[in-house]
Amino acid sequence: MGFGFELLKADGKARRGRISTLHGTVETPVFMPVATLGAVKTMTPHELEELGARIILGNTYHLYLRPGHEQIAATGGLHGFMRWKGPVLTDSGGFQVFSLGHLRKITEEGVRFQSHIDGSYHFISPEKAIEIQEALGADIIMAFDECTPYPATREYATASMELTERWAARCREAHRREGQALFGIVQGGMYKDLRERSLEGLVKIGFHGYALGGVSVGEPKEEMEAIVSHCAPLMPDDRARYLMGVGTPEDIVESVAAGMDMFDCVMPTRTARHGTLFTSEGRLIIKNARFQDDERPIEEGCECYTCRHYSRAYLKHLFRAGELLALRLNTIHNLHYYMVLMASIRQAIEEGRFDRFRNEFYYKRGRVLDTPAT
Amino acid sequence: MGFGFELLKADGKARRGRISTLHGTVETPVFMPVATLGAVKTMTPHELEELGARIILGNTYHLYLRPGHEQIAATGGLHGFMRWKGPVLTDSGGFQVFSLGHLRKITEEGVRFQSHIDGSYHFISPEKAIEIQEALGADIIMAFDECTPYPATREYATASMELTERWAARCREAHRREGQALFGIVQGGMYKDLRERSLEGLVKIGFHGYALGGVSVGEPKEEMEAIVSHCAPLMPDDRARYLMGVGTPEDIVESVAAGMDMFDCVMPTRTARHGTLFTSEGRLIIKNARFQDDERPIEEGCECYTCRHYSRAYLKHLFRAGELLALRLNTIHNLHYYMVLMASIRQAIEEGRFDRFRNEFYYKRGRVLDTPAT
Repeated sequence: MGFGFELLKADGKARRGRISTLHGTVETPVFMPVATLGAVKTMTPHELEELGARIILGNTYHLYLRPGHEQIAATGGLHGFMRWKGPVLTDSGGFQVFSLGHLRKITEEGVRFQSHIDGSYHFISPEKAIEIQEALGADIIMAFDECTPYPATREYATASMELTERWAARCREAHRREGQALFGIVQGGMYKDLRERSLEGLVKIGFHGYALGGVSVGEPKEEMEAIVSHCAPLMPDDRARYLMGVGTPEDIVESVAAGMDMFDCVMPTRTARHGTLFTSEGRLIIKNARFQDDERPIEEGCECYTCRHYSRAYLKHLFRAGELLALRLNTIHNLHYYMVLMASIRQAIEEGRFDRFRNEFYYKRGRVLDTPAT
Repeated sequence: MGFGFELLKADGKARRGRISTLHGTVETPVFMPVATLGAVKTMTPHELEELGARIILGNTYHLYLRPGHEQIAATGGLHGFMRWKGPVLTDSGGFQVFSLGHLRKITEEGVRFQSHIDGSYHFISPEKAIEIQEALGADIIMAFDECTPYPATREYATASMELTERWAARCREAHRREGQALFGIVQGGMYKDLRERSLEGLVKIGFHGYALGGVSVGEPKEEMEAIVSHCAPLMPDDRARYLMGVGTPEDIVESVAAGMDMFDCVMPTRTARHGTLFTSEGRLIIKNARFQDDERPIEEGCECYTCRHYSRAYLKHLFRAGELLALRLNTIHNLHYYMVLMASIRQAIEEGRFDRFRNEFYYKRGRVLDTPAT
């Protein structure tokens, strides 16, 4: 009862798995749309469900500040508050707090910071991060970590990773809520040996799942891929592996190839609001003048609501005119693209042809792979 | 075949009617949501249909500038462009052009103006307004009028009304499109005799329907009600009567009582985006701190999607956080309120109890009518 992970099949290093939670099961590899403030921007929970989203992510930092975890707890937790019936994952708030730069101060005890909204002072310790996340009531919560910035010296990355490990132990100790899974976060910057030490330390403490943090923080794509492909196979086979804050469709395909199971990113939703749309042949900038009279959908054959009903010409018009409907229709398409991508990945692994899938994925983009699947 | 209006029943001066168009029938009294730029802000056509909207309004001025009537014509007109299957009405662009103030110059021939978007020069004559509206392909189009400002001297209002009449004749002469109805617009400012002269002149020219323009342009509510209640009964019985740009729920109830059939206004959609929500007891400002822990829907018993799923506390949070979903959920509620109001009005007239309906409408708002129904 409660949380579980089952590895159903492996195809090379790629994994097909299943997460069980109190709010239902999730087939992996999975992409989690981001509901920063208790809503995936522009979308209702019912639309997310229709699109095939099965688990969404809430941001602890943002919800702690607005409307406050206590208010959310009083209304049945994040599930009740935002009317999402499926599983939810909350991050620990660490990433957002560290992004505050000069507005925060890190000590052994935790982080003191000022709200980006009103400048008010707050303090989050590992214990407090767990308290907030228990109140929010997600199915999966994250240990409070220091997200090591890029670039970081070996010295800084080491100290940071060790602090994250001590905090992880305190999170584990503080966590009480039944049926709620707690994941540990591997840090160590771009240093493979530090990553290994971090993972070993976390596994000793023991978590329901393990995440790679501190990637997609500004490093070159090659460095990210090197860390992910090095770390993923070392992570416990019988636990879900979560790559935090990643990423582009290409990043996801590569990380699945390396053995990761879970992903989250604002990429599909944020780029949609900026007018960039994903297709199997690459990205389409909808405001482009060449779509003026283009009666085709964003992508021929796409079965999303937007492509079934609207032309590029109309979408260009709406976007240029600043119509809010444009942001919705773009978001629907991009999330649909991600959901179909993940379903295709899962099917390919099930059928033992992930390598071929990966090659075709790049072929459609007019790009030939120069490295074999890991 | 084509356009028609049938008066089904009268209850005092209030009328229950039916408009027939090539894109379906519309039961009156009716409220038309405004799709300024080819979309009712935040909403899909399918959602509008679900809400009970049967006819929507497009703005000629805006669509002429962006994306241009020729492009819209090439994609099957406004119906095809925005994927709305039901009837559409377009205004003539007059109101928007006159709102440009120093950016426009009126002559006998028409109006020269600068785009509010890029400052480019344009000229719209009555003939051009018809050409644009024929291209947009609405089921009902409007004659090009000068919207008399408020306040206006008797001299100005007279000249303006006479110009509008000459333009109306030119519109009638220019109009060719089969199955498309052309409505004339009564002007004359706040001068009842000028309004009468305007109406007589238009009736002599002969239109498929008649509208009252130049109201809700800044005049006190009493002046508007005086003009509407004076003019409505004088308008031809066998033609639809359209009150342009009106209004609040109260305005609509009063104007139905006076004998008007059709209404349009940005009120429900715009106020929704500003966080003001309509209820049978009055307006609710959703950002108000007192809704912090309020688990009730916007209005108990309301069957809109928003009220069936979300609490005031959640809606307050979304709105304060600037979430786009807030604008959608608020818009759904307000449009639903207007659609239910119109359905209730139609039913009350059918059952010969509009007067009682009107009294109850005000009673719920804690306001006792000091004037009997007209």
